[in-house]
Amino acid sequence: IMFDSDHTEAAGTAKVQIAMKYDDKNKQFAILVMQLNNVPALMLQQDQKVNIRVAVLPCSESTSCLFRTRPMEASDSLVYNEIFWVSISYPALHQKTLRVDVCTVDKSHLEECLGGAQISLAEICRSGEKSTRWYNLLSYKYLQKQSRK
Amino acid sequence: IMFDSDHTEAAGTAKVQIAMKYDDKNKQFAILVMQLNNVPALMLQQDQKVNIRVAVLPCSESTSCLFRTRPMEASDSLVYNEIFWVSISYPALHQKTLRVDVCTVDKSHLEECLGGAQISLAEICRSGEKSTRWYNLLSYKYLQKQSRK
Repeated sequence: IMFDSDHTEAAGTAKVQIAMKYDDKNKQFAILVMQLNNVPALMLQQDQKVNIRVAVLPCSESTSCLFRTRPMEASDSLVYNEIFWVSISYPALHQKTLRVDVCTVDKSHLEECLGGAQISLAEICRSGEKSTRWYNLLSYKYLQKQSRK
Repeated sequence: IMFDSDHTEAAGTAKVQIAMKYDDKNKQFAILVMQLNNVPALMLQQDQKVNIRVAVLPCSESTSCLFRTRPMEASDSLVYNEIFWVSISYPALHQKTLRVDVCTVDKSHLEECLGGAQISLAEICRSGEKSTRWYNLLSYKYLQKQSRK
């Protein structure tokens, strides 16, 4: 229903806005999860709360690489503005991929992720510069349907 | 050779180089699959041939969205330089995500994808400009191991 061509062009996909910056002095990578747009495109059920999970992959054993925003009541767009810090050297950062997932948690605390984006950090982060961008999210329900074809 | 310093952290990830350009006049999006680097990081088996599969997602029914390069004998780095064209309007393109997978095909013609990158087209393509970049590939074997934890 959701992804035939016309509808997509009209309604569009869900998008997430992320800012990133590398702090050379303290060897810290900052990930700012700003906001989510066009949330209904991810086919939420009613009354679900939505959080954003970010992971710096592949994960090094020695440092945290998985972070979650607080959950928020679903609506068309959601403003999070939460910042996460990862301790990592600049060369190591360039080997990483930032995985961003939009998830819901049900009453039994099971996390289900509805869609995501994958951001290669091979070139995106020049030291000291802040990069702020919108990323399209791919719906996992859509991908599952595709792989069954 | 390609990665500085501690060489990533020592081994580094596999990377793919992709160039993209939107031709406004003919409403065509060009995807140039250039080369693959550090292929062994994807944990190939011996004597496998490697091809790159690109998909413009979500796929519109009316146009081709899935393309494959020719398969090549595995080695440390592989140069493809194959170009694929997608007929699409500029606003529609901004709703898409380019999925790039590195795959092998076995003798029974089953395709197995070893790793991939996902490139949001929400902002990356300014009309007329060519964007050439390296993208880190996430190994699917690694992701599966993670999700089992």
